[in-house]
Amino acid sequence: MADETATTGLLGFKPQLVVPGMKAEAAVQFYKAAFGAKELLRVAHPKRKAEQELPLILSAELKIGSSFLLVSDRFDDAGEDGSAVASGGGILLRLEAEDVDAVMKKAAAAGAEIVGEVTEAEGGVHGKVRDPFGVVWAIAAVDKKCPEAEA
Amino acid sequence: MADETATTGLLGFKPQLVVPGMKAEAAVQFYKAAFGAKELLRVAHPKRKAEQELPLILSAELKIGSSFLLVSDRFDDAGEDGSAVASGGGILLRLEAEDVDAVMKKAAAAGAEIVGEVTEAEGGVHGKVRDPFGVVWAIAAVDKKCPEAEA
Repeated sequence: MADETATTGLLGFKPQLVVPGMKAEAAVQFYKAAFGAKELLRVAHPKRKAEQELPLILSAELKIGSSFLLVSDRFDDAGEDGSAVASGGGILLRLEAEDVDAVMKKAAAAGAEIVGEVTEAEGGVHGKVRDPFGVVWAIAAVDKKCPEAEA
Repeated sequence: MADETATTGLLGFKPQLVVPGMKAEAAVQFYKAAFGAKELLRVAHPKRKAEQELPLILSAELKIGSSFLLVSDRFDDAGEDGSAVASGGGILLRLEAEDVDAVMKKAAAAGAEIVGEVTEAEGGVHGKVRDPFGVVWAIAAVDKKCPEAEA
């Protein structure tokens, strides 16, 4: 239950692994073999053209036990998501909220650095901050509680 | 519901942020201010002596919306947990399972590197693997389903 919903309508987050070298598919297969992951959903890049080397997998949602892991191909550095990758680690936290702008402002006021402005990207409104401890939070708008987060 | 429980008794995972420089407390305060995090639980190092610079916070469990984030002080490099930190990122995934050894073996067979053997540490049995995509999984034994993972 999203009983902590505050004025920013913050619902929860899922870890997202951003994989370089077009290896998101390999990562999905690995998590299936290693941890019995089940693939719930896959979103491919709508503009993908092979010669442009745009990512094949925008987001694959895996369920591992009772938890969720998102796996994405990394955009190349020229792409809009070049700032998405935390230093080295490759894991960012995708946070869902009703009011992306309010979450960004509150995080910035607390000391986070805004690394991606609020934009209308595929699938909704997004923004991005890097917190003082190196964690990148991708903040995405949702209209309502995310049912999977409560499974 | 841990309806994906396989033969390894894999229940689910939580992201764990390992913070260098004894700043886990600062991180906890930041997440409270930025995202309205609530602190559910804190485990301090039982052997901590100030002059040894052992970590103050072994694990602080935060709830952000409906999700959980663990925050820990980083052990110094001489410590048993020097291998815990993923390359640069600081986030590892703490996976709970009924049979740590079976999970480790299955992950290794799928291509993960074992970076921490199965040991009896504070709070139970632990092991650690780094997967081919740079993610470190700390695998911890639990006797039963973790109720918080379903909240």
